[in-house]
Amino acid sequence: MKIAVMGFGVVGSGVVKLIQKNAPVIRENTGAFLEVKRILDIRDFDGSEFAPLMTKSFSDIENDDEIEVVVETMGGLNPAFDFVSRCLKKKKHVVSSNKELVAQKGFELLALARENNVNFLFEASVGGGIPIIRPLSRCLAGNRIDAIAGILNGTTNFIMTKMIMERTDFSSALALAQKLGYAEKDPTADVEGLDACRKICILASLVFGNHIYPEKVHTEGITGITLADMELAERFGYVIKLIAQAKKLEDGRLYIIVSPALVPKESMLAPVNDVFNACLVQGDMTGDILLYGKGAGSSATASAVVGDIIDCADNLEKRKFFGWKEEKEGQIEDYLNIPVSLFVRVKNEKDARQKVESLFNGARIIESESKAELGFITGEEAEGALREKLSDSGLTVLSSIRVTSY
Amino acid sequence: MKIAVMGFGVVGSGVVKLIQKNAPVIRENTGAFLEVKRILDIRDFDGSEFAPLMTKSFSDIENDDEIEVVVETMGGLNPAFDFVSRCLKKKKHVVSSNKELVAQKGFELLALARENNVNFLFEASVGGGIPIIRPLSRCLAGNRIDAIAGILNGTTNFIMTKMIMERTDFSSALALAQKLGYAEKDPTADVEGLDACRKICILASLVFGNHIYPEKVHTEGITGITLADMELAERFGYVIKLIAQAKKLEDGRLYIIVSPALVPKESMLAPVNDVFNACLVQGDMTGDILLYGKGAGSSATASAVVGDIIDCADNLEKRKFFGWKEEKEGQIEDYLNIPVSLFVRVKNEKDARQKVESLFNGARIIESESKAELGFITGEEAEGALREKLSDSGLTVLSSIRVTSY
Repeated sequence: MKIAVMGFGVVGSGVVKLIQKNAPVIRENTGAFLEVKRILDIRDFDGSEFAPLMTKSFSDIENDDEIEVVVETMGGLNPAFDFVSRCLKKKKHVVSSNKELVAQKGFELLALARENNVNFLFEASVGGGIPIIRPLSRCLAGNRIDAIAGILNGTTNFIMTKMIMERTDFSSALALAQKLGYAEKDPTADVEGLDACRKICILASLVFGNHIYPEKVHTEGITGITLADMELAERFGYVIKLIAQAKKLEDGRLYIIVSPALVPKESMLAPVNDVFNACLVQGDMTGDILLYGKGAGSSATASAVVGDIIDCADNLEKRKFFGWKEEKEGQIEDYLNIPVSLFVRVKNEKDARQKVESLFNGARIIESESKAELGFITGEEAEGALREKLSDSGLTVLSSIRVTSY
Repeated sequence: MKIAVMGFGVVGSGVVKLIQKNAPVIRENTGAFLEVKRILDIRDFDGSEFAPLMTKSFSDIENDDEIEVVVETMGGLNPAFDFVSRCLKKKKHVVSSNKELVAQKGFELLALARENNVNFLFEASVGGGIPIIRPLSRCLAGNRIDAIAGILNGTTNFIMTKMIMERTDFSSALALAQKLGYAEKDPTADVEGLDACRKICILASLVFGNHIYPEKVHTEGITGITLADMELAERFGYVIKLIAQAKKLEDGRLYIIVSPALVPKESMLAPVNDVFNACLVQGDMTGDILLYGKGAGSSATASAVVGDIIDCADNLEKRKFFGWKEEKEGQIEDYLNIPVSLFVRVKNEKDARQKVESLFNGARIIESESKAELGFITGEEAEGALREKLSDSGLTVLSSIRVTSY
């Protein structure tokens, strides 16, 4: 089966190399004989062994009827959206690792794929090499999924792991991540939570059935998290992680949020360290399931792309029921209305302890090592009301972070 | 699509109930309309709402051409093997949760399924509701899998968790497991490791391509593990788990073994507690992947069965390349030839420490709390040679347990 790859960056070149290396194994294991016919990139790759396959012209792919599957690893919305749409219209399957594209245009592209009786698949867009999208859509087809919670961004998880393990601050940990190539020069999309937000939108759209757009999801990054937060949380038996979560509420609406959160040390999410990702899924039949692995990297992500390509080879004209419907207006509940429990760090001023005790009856209070600060965990209350109470408390609040029970 | 269920026990009744409860959701999510037409069981279920579907005669299923998928949840080899073979010959897809059947007869049944152009699927035979078989065969199709290590038996994991958490001995923990319904009256297959052995055989057959029979796999249970082992291992930073593992050696042969083993506290396998299972997969492209969830139970296992049924609905005449070949003679290396490192507990006799120091140069030695015993961890050496050295050492060896690096 002839394949074209659009975008010869980290993931795209990984796909080409993986196919070259493992084509015989893939053929033996699956019957699919994969062959890369064209690679689209605007850059020159004169020295590369793949130079003969390179093209700068999209029409070389669009108009080549031999090409049955197109891999999109360009990233970004433009021109990826235009190219992918045109490939689908030409009845070519498309496999994408581009989370921005799927999170913003998933509904349109899935509809277009359905109209043209081809697949639009994107296992690699969430969790790199971890099988997530397929298990969610297939193995769990007999389940009603109630909630998902994940560590979906490797860069921030690396930074947070370093902060607590090496007792260092955010900026030093970020600098290390950049040095090791785990964070980009401009780390905004990662550290501000946008990348994790796109991924939870993709998963929640798939699981709950309607497109969820990232801009509708309350998203907080990790730039405000300090080592002091982590150390105090540790004394309560928690670690702090950037958690992307989505949950079906009793009235059918959704709670969906991305933010740093305290995770109990006993949770399967707690030992997920460094650049690893994990996704916890709660099904009505299965109970808790955790899928864990490398969330990024050339080889891991390429392996997810190749899995999707093989699916296309095997399932021509299949996967009719894969995907989701258009956005449902008003589906997302305002996060401030949802009951949460907060971990709060305050200055240990003269009457701070009494204030906490009277406002948050029964809250466990722990002093920081220096005794200059107090930490406590509130009971569950609507977040808006809880934050109002805190701001009216007279306490000098240094930070307040959600507590999860996942 | 009409379905028959053979065996109305815990899993079989779970499948029937799940289909009844979630049929509309399944139809919406996958397009498959599932309907249970017949249930085979030798017992009477007069009061049951499913009584009209019950039959004691296999021929009611075998000769009903409307039935396209047969679910086998009887357990045991006989008559399951006969019935499943005959269903496949009648060109019915078969979905099984029966690990004994798959581990002993997988190769024959897969070949029979292929001949008759139908599926023989068994996601539920390993890891209950955790998606393992499908991710291994599909998502990882572009990978070369080098090793698998798992906690594949919930009963023993529950017992071992209780032992260390509640500081109790094996027989008390077993009694509790029996009381809670996690262990059978005759717990032999679980506590002696046979159940875990069947499951690793299924996974290793799938991943490495040739049938591996349980009787060829060195298997040790947990009956010899004491709280003293666990407490001393804890001081070295390890937990003890029943680990089933399979690994491709450099010469292409396999190391496959089921035994209690020390797992580092930092491992993703370490926090897998109670009846939960987990499977760690090492791929050349993906790196480490962990799949975690409930390894047993009616609903979780039923959900895996239903996933397979939906696959049959969607993929009539597909999955040609799913499965493995016949046994490869001499494929399994004698475990005594494989280098391992051992955790050893010995009596703290007069010159025990000197003996350890001279025989196992550089080994870290830790005293038990009572000081009556010493623990140490050896370097890596062929297991046979290492055990010989131990038995010639003059040390009073109380236990010796493999150490893993997973």
